[in-house]
Amino acid sequence: MSVTPCPGLDPAARWATLHDMFTKRHGPPGSSPATLTPHLVDGQARKPSVQIIEYDKDGVEEREITDLAELAARFDSRKVTWINIDGLGDVEVLSYLGQRFNLHPLALEDVLNTGQRPKVEAGPDYVFIVAQMVYQNREQTICGEQVSLFFGKNFLITVQEEGEYDVFDPVRERIRGGRGSIRKAKADYLGYALLDSIIDHYYPVLEDIGTAIEELEDDLLERPSRGMVITLHEYKRSLTQLRRFIWPLRDVVNGLLHDPSGHITSPTKVYLRDCYDHTVQLMDHVESYKEITSGLMELYHSSVGLRTNEVMRVLTVITSIFIPLTFIVGVYGMNFAPETPDGKKLPLNMPELYLPHGYIAIMLVMAVIAGVQLVIFKKMKWL
Amino acid sequence: MSVTPCPGLDPAARWATLHDMFTKRHGPPGSSPATLTPHLVDGQARKPSVQIIEYDKDGVEEREITDLAELAARFDSRKVTWINIDGLGDVEVLSYLGQRFNLHPLALEDVLNTGQRPKVEAGPDYVFIVAQMVYQNREQTICGEQVSLFFGKNFLITVQEEGEYDVFDPVRERIRGGRGSIRKAKADYLGYALLDSIIDHYYPVLEDIGTAIEELEDDLLERPSRGMVITLHEYKRSLTQLRRFIWPLRDVVNGLLHDPSGHITSPTKVYLRDCYDHTVQLMDHVESYKEITSGLMELYHSSVGLRTNEVMRVLTVITSIFIPLTFIVGVYGMNFAPETPDGKKLPLNMPELYLPHGYIAIMLVMAVIAGVQLVIFKKMKWL
Amino acid sequence: MSVTPCPGLDPAARWATLHDMFTKRHGPPGSSPATLTPHLVDGQARKPSVQIIEYDKDGVEEREITDLAELAARFDSRKVTWINIDGLGDVEVLSYLGQRFNLHPLALEDVLNTGQRPKVEAGPDYVFIVAQMVYQNREQTICGEQVSLFFGKNFLITVQEEGEYDVFDPVRERIRGGRGSIRKAKADYLGYALLDSIIDHYYPVLEDIGTAIEELEDDLLERPSRGMVITLHEYKRSLTQLRRFIWPLRDVVNGLLHDPSGHITSPTKVYLRDCYDHTVQLMDHVESYKEITSGLMELYHSSVGLRTNEVMRVLTVITSIFIPLTFIVGVYGMNFAPETPDGKKLPLNMPELYLPHGYIAIMLVMAVIAGVQLVIFKKMKWL
Amino acid sequence: MSVTPCPGLDPAARWATLHDMFTKRHGPPGSSPATLTPHLVDGQARKPSVQIIEYDKDGVEEREITDLAELAARFDSRKVTWINIDGLGDVEVLSYLGQRFNLHPLALEDVLNTGQRPKVEAGPDYVFIVAQMVYQNREQTICGEQVSLFFGKNFLITVQEEGEYDVFDPVRERIRGGRGSIRKAKADYLGYALLDSIIDHYYPVLEDIGTAIEELEDDLLERPSRGMVITLHEYKRSLTQLRRFIWPLRDVVNGLLHDPSGHITSPTKVYLRDCYDHTVQLMDHVESYKEITSGLMELYHSSVGLRTNEVMRVLTVITSIFIPLTFIVGVYGMNFAPETPDGKKLPLNMPELYLPHGYIAIMLVMAVIAGVQLVIFKKMKWL
Amino acid sequence: MSVTPCPGLDPAARWATLHDMFTKRHGPPGSSPATLTPHLVDGQARKPSVQIIEYDKDGVEEREITDLAELAARFDSRKVTWINIDGLGDVEVLSYLGQRFNLHPLALEDVLNTGQRPKVEAGPDYVFIVAQMVYQNREQTICGEQVSLFFGKNFLITVQEEGEYDVFDPVRERIRGGRGSIRKAKADYLGYALLDSIIDHYYPVLEDIGTAIEELEDDLLERPSRGMVITLHEYKRSLTQLRRFIWPLRDVVNGLLHDPSGHITSPTKVYLRDCYDHTVQLMDHVESYKEITSGLMELYHSSVGLRTNEVMRVLTVITSIFIPLTFIVGVYGMNFAPETPDGKKLPLNMPELYLPHGYIAIMLVMAVIAGVQLVIFKKMKWL
Repeated sequence: MSVTPCPGLDPAARWATLHDMFTKRHGPPGSSPATLTPHLVDGQARKPSVQIIEYDKDGVEEREITDLAELAARFDSRKVTWINIDGLGDVEVLSYLGQRFNLHPLALEDVLNTGQRPKVEAGPDYVFIVAQMVYQNREQTICGEQVSLFFGKNFLITVQEEGEYDVFDPVRERIRGGRGSIRKAKADYLGYALLDSIIDHYYPVLEDIGTAIEELEDDLLERPSRGMVITLHEYKRSLTQLRRFIWPLRDVVNGLLHDPSGHITSPTKVYLRDCYDHTVQLMDHVESYKEITSGLMELYHSSVGLRTNEVMRVLTVITSIFIPLTFIVGVYGMNFAPETPDGKKLPLNMPELYLPHGYIAIMLVMAVIAGVQLVIFKKMKWL
Repeated sequence: MSVTPCPGLDPAARWATLHDMFTKRHGPPGSSPATLTPHLVDGQARKPSVQIIEYDKDGVEEREITDLAELAARFDSRKVTWINIDGLGDVEVLSYLGQRFNLHPLALEDVLNTGQRPKVEAGPDYVFIVAQMVYQNREQTICGEQVSLFFGKNFLITVQEEGEYDVFDPVRERIRGGRGSIRKAKADYLGYALLDSIIDHYYPVLEDIGTAIEELEDDLLERPSRGMVITLHEYKRSLTQLRRFIWPLRDVVNGLLHDPSGHITSPTKVYLRDCYDHTVQLMDHVESYKEITSGLMELYHSSVGLRTNEVMRVLTVITSIFIPLTFIVGVYGMNFAPETPDGKKLPLNMPELYLPHGYIAIMLVMAVIAGVQLVIFKKMKWL
Repeated sequence: MSVTPCPGLDPAARWATLHDMFTKRHGPPGSSPATLTPHLVDGQARKPSVQIIEYDKDGVEEREITDLAELAARFDSRKVTWINIDGLGDVEVLSYLGQRFNLHPLALEDVLNTGQRPKVEAGPDYVFIVAQMVYQNREQTICGEQVSLFFGKNFLITVQEEGEYDVFDPVRERIRGGRGSIRKAKADYLGYALLDSIIDHYYPVLEDIGTAIEELEDDLLERPSRGMVITLHEYKRSLTQLRRFIWPLRDVVNGLLHDPSGHITSPTKVYLRDCYDHTVQLMDHVESYKEITSGLMELYHSSVGLRTNEVMRVLTVITSIFIPLTFIVGVYGMNFAPETPDGKKLPLNMPELYLPHGYIAIMLVMAVIAGVQLVIFKKMKWL
Repeated sequence: MSVTPCPGLDPAARWATLHDMFTKRHGPPGSSPATLTPHLVDGQARKPSVQIIEYDKDGVEEREITDLAELAARFDSRKVTWINIDGLGDVEVLSYLGQRFNLHPLALEDVLNTGQRPKVEAGPDYVFIVAQMVYQNREQTICGEQVSLFFGKNFLITVQEEGEYDVFDPVRERIRGGRGSIRKAKADYLGYALLDSIIDHYYPVLEDIGTAIEELEDDLLERPSRGMVITLHEYKRSLTQLRRFIWPLRDVVNGLLHDPSGHITSPTKVYLRDCYDHTVQLMDHVESYKEITSGLMELYHSSVGLRTNEVMRVLTVITSIFIPLTFIVGVYGMNFAPETPDGKKLPLNMPELYLPHGYIAIMLVMAVIAGVQLVIFKKMKWL
Repeated sequence: MSVTPCPGLDPAARWATLHDMFTKRHGPPGSSPATLTPHLVDGQARKPSVQIIEYDKDGVEEREITDLAELAARFDSRKVTWINIDGLGDVEVLSYLGQRFNLHPLALEDVLNTGQRPKVEAGPDYVFIVAQMVYQNREQTICGEQVSLFFGKNFLITVQEEGEYDVFDPVRERIRGGRGSIRKAKADYLGYALLDSIIDHYYPVLEDIGTAIEELEDDLLERPSRGMVITLHEYKRSLTQLRRFIWPLRDVVNGLLHDPSGHITSPTKVYLRDCYDHTVQLMDHVESYKEITSGLMELYHSSVGLRTNEVMRVLTVITSIFIPLTFIVGVYGMNFAPETPDGKKLPLNMPELYLPHGYIAIMLVMAVIAGVQLVIFKKMKWL
C-alpha cells in the first residue's frame, strides 16, 4: 500500500489510510499457492529501488543497485549485508533474491500479499518476519505499510511498500554514525533494531490519538454534538485496527524470544525482551484508550438523555402553568348571552362577567393557580 | 443443502441461505448411531453424480462413473485417485465406498447429517474432514454447502451437497493444467489444496459483507432509518454464522498441522501453516466486522437519541414562546362587561380595552416577552 | 422432579418446569454427608418401579421387580444387566443396590438431591454419571428430570425421576429389536447409548426455541410490544438454564473419553467422540441463540426509540404549525374596543378589524406561515 | 465483624452487613508484617471465649477454658482436639496458641485482619484455611463472619468473629450424637465437615436472594418503579460480594484436594470432592442470578422506554386532534367586524358567521377532521 | 514525574496526576536502545539526592552523599547497604552506579523512562523491579511516582522520582527502630519490605475511591445530575489506571515467588506470598469497584429514563385534560351571529348561548369530561 497523502483537516479522515490496511490483498480463491503478483500503482508496476548497506565495526558501505546481477557477486561473510527493497511493483527482484538466499515461495507470496497479520516464521536458513508499520507523514496523516524482514547469519533483507517516509531511517543513521553497539553486532541485532524502530513508531501515533480523545472528552462534557460521536466512532475503529497490528506483533517478538532455531543470539534476546515490554505497553495503551472511548460514548448517551429530560421539564412546566390559565380565560371568552335575542333575561349565563370586581378577581385566581404550580414544581425540583 | 437461488434484491435476503445452514440435520433422538438417511430434494432422492480424477506427474485421467462396480476395479497405487461425489440423495454409493475404503460408519453418518460443526478426525487408514464451504452464486446470493473429505495415502474422496457452483473447480483446473506442484504431490497435498480453496472462498464473501457494512455506515450517519437497523441485525447474524464455520475450521487446520498419524507429509505441513494463517486472518476479519457492527448499532442509538432531543427542543421553544402569548390574547378576549345588562357602569372590568393605545401596548408587551425568551433560548444553546 | 402438565398456551409458561430445575434439592446446612432423603410428591413417598433388562447378543429378558430380594439372585456375568429405577420416593431400593453393587453413599445422595450439576465420577468398580434430561411431553411442555447412571463391567443401573415420558425408550426398542451393535456390546456401550439419547433429546427442544425466536423476530420487526420483550426475556432465561445443563454435560462426555479407569472400551470411545461433537454443537446452538436473543433485545430498544422519535416528530410538526396560528386568531379575538363606553373613538385599537379585506388578508397570512413551516419541516426531513 | 442486628424491613438493607465485609481490615501502610492488633467492639476489646471438644470414637469431652495455662496440659494424641475461639478481641490467646502449635505469625495476622480473601496454605505441621461464612440470623438479616481453621494430625483450631449464630453448631451436634462417620475419623475429616457446613450455609442465602429476584421479576413486569431498580442494584452488589467469597472458596477446596502435604487422607478427599461440586454449583447459581438480574435491568429499561412511548402517543393523538379544532374555533372567535364603527358594510369580513347553517356546518367540518385523524391514528396503530 | 500539588476541591481533579502517569516517557522512535536522558523539571535538571543506609542486626548508619567518589569506597559485605536516589535529573549518578554494580544499560533506561509497566527482571547479579507507587499527599491529592529497585546479595538500590512524600519512610523507621525482623535479614527481605510498603499504600487510595463512590451512590439515588456522571466517569478512569498498575504488580510478586535465580531466600518467599495475596485482594477491590461504577452508571441511566417518563406523564395528563376543555370554551367563544347584519334571524347559530342554563350546563359537561379523564388516568396508574 502506497502512502496516500490525504491531508484532510477532519481528524477522522486522517485515519482513512489505516482503515484501508484492513483488507488483505489476495489472489483469486483456489489459485495455486506461492503465486507472485506485482503491486500496481495507478495501473502500472513501478520498478522498486534496491539499496545495499554492508558494514562491520570498521566501516560502512552503501550502494544503490540497478542491475540484479550485481547482487550475485557481493557477499562478504565477515560483514553484515542489509538489502533493502522499496516497492512491490516488480516480482523479478523477489524471485532473484528467493533463489539467491533460498527463501520459501510462500514467504515471498506473503511479502506481496499486503494486509497480512504480523507473524514470524523461523526456517533453517533464516527468520522471516512480517509486520505492519504505522507512522505519521508530513501532512500528519496516519500512514501504514507492510514490512517484511528476512535475516540469516550475516544478511538481512527488508522489503517494504513504497512510501514517502521510512521508519528505518533512524537505524540507518545509527549504522552510519557508528553510535551504540549496532556496528559491532550481527544481523540478528540489526533485525531487532529494525523491529524496535517499527514498534517505537507506534508510540507517537497512539499518543496522537490519546490527545485527540482527551480533547474530545472536554468538548463532550461541555456541549455534545453528533459530530463528536462520529469522530469517537472513527477513533474506536482506528484503535481496533491498531490492535489488530500490535497484538500479533507481540506474538512475533515473543516468538523470536523463544526461537529455538539459534538465529537469535543471547545478547540480542535481552534487547528483544525490552522490545516485548514495549509491545505489551502498547497493547495496554490501546486497551485503555478503547475503554475510555467506550466510557465517553456512555457519557454522551447519558448526556443526551439528561438534556432531553431538561428540555421536557421546561416544556412541561410552561405548558402546565399556561394551559389551565388559557382554559380559564377561554371560559370568560364564551359568548353565553345575558339575554335571548328577543330580550329575555338569562341571569344564570355567566353572571361573573357583570360583577364589579370580576376581572380583577379572575386575574387574582389565575395568579394564585400559577403560584401554586410554581411552588409544586419547585418542590419537585423541576425548576 | 442444495443451493437455493434466492436472487432477492434485499441485501439481507441474500444471506438467508446461510442462516438455514445453522440447523444440523439429524435423525430422531435416541436412534441407533451411524444410521444413513439420504437427503431428499423436493421429496425425492436424486442420484448423485460420481466423478473420478486419477493423476500423477505424467498425466490426468477424468471419468464420470455410473456403475458402482467400476469403482472396485480401478486403483493404481502410483497415482492419486480423487473420487468426487456430488449430491447426498443416495446412501448406496456411500455404503459402497465405506466398505471399499474401510470408512467408519459414524463418519459416513456425519457426511449425510449436514449442518455439522467443521472437524477433523484422523484414523489409521485415512483422515476425515468436515467443513462448510461458503460462496456467492451467479445471482450474488451467499450459498453454503457441507463438504466432507477423506484422504489416505493415495486416494481422496470428497462428498458435497449438490450445488450450482463448485469451489473445487480451480483445483481441478490446476490438476488439468499441471500448474504448480499439485501433480507432483500426493493425496495429502490435494487435500490441502481443496481445504485451501474452501478457505479462500470465504474472503470474497467477507469482503462483500465488509463493503455492505461500510455503505451502511455512510447512510447511517446521514439519515438513520429502521430498515438500516434491521439490515445491521441481519449482518450481525450472518457474521455470527460465519464465525461458527470459520472458528472450528481453524481448529481443523491446526489439528492437521499437529496430526501425529503421519498422513500429512512435512512439505504439505508448510502449506497448511499458510492455510492456518488464513483462517486466523478470517477470524480477525469476522471479529473486526462484528465490532464495527456493534459500533454502528451504538451510533444509531445515539443518533436517534440526539434526533429526539432536537425534535423536543424545537417543540419546547415554539410552545414556550407562543403559549404565554396565547394566554395573554385570551385574557383580552374575555367578555368582562364594561357595564351590567341593566346599564350599571363596571369601570374595573378590563379598562385596558378602552385605552387609546391599549392594543399597541399589548402587542409590544408580547413582542418583548417573545424576544426575551428567544434570548434565553439562544443563551441555553437551544437554538 | 415429576413432569408437571402445564399445557398453557403462553409460550413462556411452557418453560416454567425448566426454570424449576434450577434449584438444587439439599438437606439442612451442616447435616451429615451421604444422608438419603426420599422425594415426596404431594407430601407422600411413592414406591418406585424397578425394571430389569438382561441381554446378550442371543436374547433379551425383561422383568418388572416388586420384591427387592429378587435382585440378590440374578446376575449372569455373560449378559448385560440393566436395572432401571423410576421414581425417587423410596430410599430402601437405593440402599439395597448400594450395598449389592458397592455404590458410594455420596453418589447415592447425589441421585436423590436433584438439581445437580451434570458430572461424572469414576470409581474402581463403576462409573457414576449424573445428567439432566430435557424433553417435550405430549402437551408440548418442556420437562426435565435428573437421571443417574452407574455402570460397571456388565451391569448398568439408571435412576430417574418419575415422568410420563422416558428418553430411554428408543434405546429399549433397539435392545429388543436387536438393531445396530447394541446387543453385541458390553455395559459401557449401553451407557453411551443412554447418554447419547439424553443428548439427542436436547435437539428438538433447542430447535423449538429456535423456531419460536425466529417467529418472534418477524413480529418484533413489524410491531414491537411489551409482551414480546417479556417472552424474549423468558427465552433468554431458558437458554441460560439449558446452558447450565449442556456445558457440564460436555465435560461429562470428555471425562468419559479420557477416563483412565478402563471402564470404557476403545470401540465405545469412538462413539463417545461422536457424542462429544454433539454436545459441542448443542453449546454452539445455545450460544448462537443467546446472541440472537440479545440482538433482538437491542433491535427492540432501537425500534422503540425510533417510534418515540416518530411520535415526537408528528407532535412537534402539528404543534409548531397550529400554535402560532392559534395565537394569531387569538389576537383578533381580543376585545379592544373601537370606542370607550362613553363613545370616545379609539382608532388605534385593532383597526385591522374594520378593513374591508382584513379577514381574507389574515387568512392568507396564516396560510403562508403554515406553508413556510411545511417547507421547512420537509427540508429537515421531519415529514 | 460482629453480627449487627439490622432487622430493617427494606430488603436491600438486609444485605448491608454483607457489603461491610467487603473492606479488608489492615494496619497502617508500611507497618511491620505479622503485627497482631485486637478487634475492638464499641471501642473496647472483648475477651474471646475458648471452647475445647476432645473426641474419639468412644466418647466426647467438652470444656470451656478460662485460663490459658489449661491449654498447655491437655493434648491426647489418640483423640481429636478441637479448640474453638469465639471473638477477636484478645491477641494473647492467639499468640499463646501460635507458640503452642507453632503457627506462622503471618497466618495469625490474617486471622485478625478480617475481610480476607478465602485461601488455603499448607505448611509442614498444619493446613491453614481462611473462609467467609454467610448466614441469616434470627431477624433474617444476612450476616457474615470470617472463620480461620488450622488443622494438623490430631488437632483443629477454629477462630471466628463473635456472632449470635454459629454455623459450626450442626457439626457439634453430629460429634455429640456420634452420628455419621465423624467420630471415627481424624482431624482432617473434621476440617472437611466444618468447611462443608460453611459452604452449605450459602445455599439458603442464595435461595433467599433467588426468591427475592423472582418476586421482583413479577412486580417489574406489572408496574416498574424506581425503587425496584435500586433493589435490583442492591441484589447485584450482594451477588458480586457473594461471588467474591465463593470463587476463592472453590480454589480453597481444590487446593485441599490436590494438597501434596499429606494432611488430607484419601477417604476425606472423596468427601472434599463432593464439597468441590457444591462450590461449583454455588458459582453456577451466583452467575445465573447475576445474568437474570442483568436481564431484569434490561427489561426494566425497555419497559420504561415503551411506557414513555405510550405516554407520548396519547399526548400526540390528543394534541393532534384538538389543536387544529381549537384553531378553527379560534378563527370564528375573531372579531372582524361586519361594518366599520361608522356603519360602512364590510361584507367580506367573516360572512360565514351570518350563514343560517354556519354553526352546524363548522361543527360538522370539525367532526370530519377529528374522524379522519382518528382513522389515520388507528391505521398507524397509535390507538 | 514530580509530585504536582493540585489541591483542587473537585474530587475528579484530585486524580489528575494519576492520569498523567499513563503516558510512558520515551526517546524519539528508532533511537539507540539504552540511551539515558535526564528528567527536566521546569526545563532544568535538578541534582538528585543520594542517601545511604547501612545496617546489620547490631546497628544502623545513615549518610547523605554529595560526592559520587564516596560510593566507590564503602561496601561492607556483612552489612546490608541501601542506596536511595531521589530525583531523575542527573544521569551521571545512574551511570556511575551502573558501572559500580554492573547494572544492565536497558534497566537504567527503564529507570529514567517513567510510566513503565511494573515488571521484574532477574539477572545473575541482581533482581531489577519497576513499580508505580501511588499515595495521597498532604493536600489529599492522589500522586504517583515510578520506583525502581535493584537488589543483590547485600545491596539494594532504589531510584524514585522526586516527591514530597516517601512511601519508604515507614520502612526506614523500622530499620532505625530495629523493630521486627528487618535488621536481622538480608537485602532480599528489605526488597520485600519496600515492595510491601508500595502495595500497602494502594489500600488507603482505593478505600478513598470506595468511599467516594458510595457517597456518590447515595446522591445518585436521590437526585441524579450530570456532574455525577462526569465524576463517575473520572472514577472509572482512575480505576482503569490503578488496574494498569496493580495487575502487573501481581505478576511482579509472582515472578519473585517463582524466581529460580536464588536471589530470594525461602523465608522471604513466605512473606512475599502474603504480599501476593495483597495484590490479588487489591485487584479484587478494583474489579468490584469497577463493577459497582458500571452498576451506578446503569442506575443513573434508568433513573433519567424514569424521570423523563414521569415528566412526560405530567405533561400528558395536564394537556389531555385541558386541551379538550379549551376547545369547548373556544366553541362557545365563536361569534356565529343570532341574526344577520340586516336583522334576519338565524336561530340555528349557536342556540345554546341563549338557553337559560346554557353556561351552567357547559360547565358541568366540562367537569364531567375532566372527571372521566382523571378516572382513566388513575386507572392507567399515570397519576
